[in-house]
Amino acid sequence: MNEKISKAVIARLPKYYRILVDLQDKGVKRVSSKELSAILKSTASQVRQDFNNFGGFGQQGYGYNVDELLNQIQRILGLGSSYKTIIIGSGNIGQALANYKGFSNGGFKLEAMFDLNPKIVGLKVNDVKVLDYSELPAYLEANEVDIAYLAVNEQNAQEVTNVLLKGGVKGIWNFTPVDLEVTGDTVIENVHLIDSLYIMSYYLKGEAR
Amino acid sequence: MNEKISKAVIARLPKYYRILVDLQDKGVKRVSSKELSAILKSTASQVRQDFNNFGGFGQQGYGYNVDELLNQIQRILGLGSSYKTIIIGSGNIGQALANYKGFSNGGFKLEAMFDLNPKIVGLKVNDVKVLDYSELPAYLEANEVDIAYLAVNEQNAQEVTNVLLKGGVKGIWNFTPVDLEVTGDTVIENVHLIDSLYIMSYYLKGEAR
Repeated sequence: MNEKISKAVIARLPKYYRILVDLQDKGVKRVSSKELSAILKSTASQVRQDFNNFGGFGQQGYGYNVDELLNQIQRILGLGSSYKTIIIGSGNIGQALANYKGFSNGGFKLEAMFDLNPKIVGLKVNDVKVLDYSELPAYLEANEVDIAYLAVNEQNAQEVTNVLLKGGVKGIWNFTPVDLEVTGDTVIENVHLIDSLYIMSYYLKGEAR
Repeated sequence: MNEKISKAVIARLPKYYRILVDLQDKGVKRVSSKELSAILKSTASQVRQDFNNFGGFGQQGYGYNVDELLNQIQRILGLGSSYKTIIIGSGNIGQALANYKGFSNGGFKLEAMFDLNPKIVGLKVNDVKVLDYSELPAYLEANEVDIAYLAVNEQNAQEVTNVLLKGGVKGIWNFTPVDLEVTGDTVIENVHLIDSLYIMSYYLKGEAR
């Protein structure tokens, strides 16, 4: 891994990506760091610094070519690849993730869903069948999986994670509040929704007022 | 608002908060910036800088008193307040949010849910009844609402937002991919799940490899 690029810079790349897709859709051909920073509510100097981490893509006095910059960020993020994904835990969150079209458009292809609950096993969500959780080890033996979306109960999170790791899953998108223990270079991406509410609290009633 | 504190610092406060709650639960009485930074995968100097934005809470050679630091961060974030919340759009995501116990424990009290779909209207989710969307304006006139969780279809997002703003809602937690246009000092907090997948892509197949 390229350890030099900070997590904060990486965390901003998806925003650049979304903004550039939007500009391209609108037929915009070039954009300055100042314009980008205004959309991002950041500063022009931060935008330039962020891109300098990857060699910088702009031209002084011209700014950035939207198509080129988009291609570069797509390449850096590894988008354009195709990912095989599965969902473990097919309750409300799991089903919401299965139904979200933006993921498959982005190359994240849902191949299977799993659940423990007999009322949920056998359902079809967005054309994908929910399998019994007991079938997971055999499924992982027969199929290569890039990313598992983990939306199980808190108390089962680590145990399921161990099964996923044993089965060779490369990344876990963790919707549980558990800090998962993983081995090797498994990639974990945590979604802590409560953090987002706390930030809202800050802007509503916290020290910001 | 205190404009001096950057969004990046605010974005880290919920993590500090969660870590300190965890340390307190484990009976830990004091912690150094180095120990905090190891849990956060950050640096000790960033931890100290972050707290210096609020006057700094540590003591050289001692570190931080966990209880005190937790109280300070709670105060800064405005937690301990109680928030009245409603959910607009009571499909999979709306129901998942209604069922998540961490929110009500954090002071975010769900008072009502709304939906357009006659199959969903009338359901009870976690003891809260789903009302018909047509009742929203009257509800907002009769009840003060701090935060609306917006989980409607993309095409309805802005229209519903306009109704919420007219009804005096102070904050919108936006689960739609739409960049909402708001007036005044309404607080918007966007949850862009796809960003999180893009970051995972970077660490799986992007330039990090």
